[in-house]
Amino acid sequence: MSKQEFKSALKVQEGIAQPNQINPKFNYQRSRKPQLTAKEFVDGILKGDRVILSQAITLVESALPQHYVLSQEIIAACLPYSGNSIRIGITGVPGVGKSTFIEAFGKLLTSMKHKVAVLAIDPSSERSKGSILGDKTRMEELSIDPNAFIRPSPSAGSLGGVARKTRESIILCEAAGFDRIIVETVGVGQSETAVHSMVDFFLLLMLSGAGDELQGIKRGIMEMADAIVINKADGDNIQKANLAKTQYTSALHLFPPTSSKWKPVALTCSSYTKDGIDQVLSTISNYTDLTTKNGYFKQHRMEQAKYTLVEYIHKASLDLFYSNPRVVEKYKQIELDVVHGIKSPYIAGAELIQLFTDKK
Amino acid sequence: MSKQEFKSALKVQEGIAQPNQINPKFNYQRSRKPQLTAKEFVDGILKGDRVILSQAITLVESALPQHYVLSQEIIAACLPYSGNSIRIGITGVPGVGKSTFIEAFGKLLTSMKHKVAVLAIDPSSERSKGSILGDKTRMEELSIDPNAFIRPSPSAGSLGGVARKTRESIILCEAAGFDRIIVETVGVGQSETAVHSMVDFFLLLMLSGAGDELQGIKRGIMEMADAIVINKADGDNIQKANLAKTQYTSALHLFPPTSSKWKPVALTCSSYTKDGIDQVLSTISNYTDLTTKNGYFKQHRMEQAKYTLVEYIHKASLDLFYSNPRVVEKYKQIELDVVHGIKSPYIAGAELIQLFTDKK
Repeated sequence: MSKQEFKSALKVQEGIAQPNQINPKFNYQRSRKPQLTAKEFVDGILKGDRVILSQAITLVESALPQHYVLSQEIIAACLPYSGNSIRIGITGVPGVGKSTFIEAFGKLLTSMKHKVAVLAIDPSSERSKGSILGDKTRMEELSIDPNAFIRPSPSAGSLGGVARKTRESIILCEAAGFDRIIVETVGVGQSETAVHSMVDFFLLLMLSGAGDELQGIKRGIMEMADAIVINKADGDNIQKANLAKTQYTSALHLFPPTSSKWKPVALTCSSYTKDGIDQVLSTISNYTDLTTKNGYFKQHRMEQAKYTLVEYIHKASLDLFYSNPRVVEKYKQIELDVVHGIKSPYIAGAELIQLFTDKK
Repeated sequence: MSKQEFKSALKVQEGIAQPNQINPKFNYQRSRKPQLTAKEFVDGILKGDRVILSQAITLVESALPQHYVLSQEIIAACLPYSGNSIRIGITGVPGVGKSTFIEAFGKLLTSMKHKVAVLAIDPSSERSKGSILGDKTRMEELSIDPNAFIRPSPSAGSLGGVARKTRESIILCEAAGFDRIIVETVGVGQSETAVHSMVDFFLLLMLSGAGDELQGIKRGIMEMADAIVINKADGDNIQKANLAKTQYTSALHLFPPTSSKWKPVALTCSSYTKDGIDQVLSTISNYTDLTTKNGYFKQHRMEQAKYTLVEYIHKASLDLFYSNPRVVEKYKQIELDVVHGIKSPYIAGAELIQLFTDKK
């Protein structure tokens, strides 16, 4: 094994990288250290072994078929031990201070004897954007906390793929004893809907001085939030933050009620002075108290599982359609006819479905 | 032909009802009056013959296969003459005054020499809810206006089906020379997303005294609105309506920008005194001016056509999956396993897809 190969293998072991990304020729199976069996993985995870947990998540994130099979076996075995955490989604545009907030919030949780896992979804991220080692560097204190586990974003890929990886990683983290799972995402795209479909509580981080900072937040995300937290409420910024809080409180009041019966709230906090971080925590407690009592918490989880199944089926059915060679051959031309108003979308669609179902 | 059959046939001719709904045994093809050919339909529509337009929409709404084929032929021929209208979606909870608003708004449009067609989407409506003859009765003046065409809701059906029927009816109305199309929907369900995907401008009707009245509006609808119009701003209500306008203006200000670059506005109006109705109109003009200049108007239409094609394909692909007998046999049990956390949704999904693709 060359020095380069060794370093790559090490990164893989640490769960920092996927084998096929560092060196396409490098084969995990052929590395000196023998591959663990599914049982060894599961035993390690259930014992809370973080290195093995990391390796298991690497398998989940891997694109190699043999890793997929093994990871599914591990997940199936971990599934009965999962589900006992509170899953918190956190989103906000770049610059809003997600990492420092998660650091402060996570430290508060670990000080209360919680075990915290931080996962990230960012399907648009190319490594260069710095979400890989960056997360660990930016969350300096949390990353060395023995009760915290920080997992950098999986590599760029389709949203469906990344969402699946994160859902499965949640299962593994829960089986490893983490009872607070934080899923971080950048508030600029469709990934929030995906995160919303896998967490219990959805928190939108904002900055004071509404307007410019909102440019990046996609429409619809505000209405998904269970809490809007105005970050960086410190120093000269406190007054502006309080004003923003008042404004968001009024706006949230105008929103239609949620099916959880929870009334979304606006809060301020400072990840720097730590002011208000405890209120975020108590808000989440209030939420889980309410939704546990009224049954929504459990019902929501069941709906999420159903949703995931349906989502998988939708994706897979469409993959079958769009990869059909007869469809591929005609699609572009038919779509052009539709876009230019030459052909009704319904007639065009029926033609394509006919091509798909034709036995050849 | 019996008296009952004759009355039924008459209703069908008027486009008030679908043949198979009045008397299942009644066959449109067998009625004394011979069925028009596709060419006769198209010629009639292009001449602006409202009776023939009505009949053509009835074909579009029909569930009979032979009607489907004929209607698709008519639509294909009308398609090149369509697209030259401004399509306005109007939504709001029951009681907000949609019909009286559309009456006042429509009358203003026809007084300006516009030709106005009013269509409705209400997939949940059972006839008993009164949307059938009710629409015409409630819009007394507009319904007898020679430059207006009011088409009651198609019968209850799947949202996809109802949306298709409305999209195709829009094409026929445009080919018949209607240059303002109003699509009405009840703001309580998914149908707004469908309407949003077929109109140029989306208007949300509200009442003053936010809170109680919002109970019925689904989350996410507010963020789709290009304008929020507070109705019933008359008499004692004016002050409250102005207050609501201010509140909504602030709330809209907090929303992220739209991709059309349009800044959604809040307005007040009274369908009774007609105050503010002209402002709704000038708001829509401002919108179309802006989006015509910046290219969004056309781009949006092209995206809608693409969206409709994709939507059709998704629906049809999933229909193929869900109607597969091997899938049907196993689905319920597998779903239960997922909901109860016994089986991972991904493993369950893969099993079901395997059943679907299995050649038997």
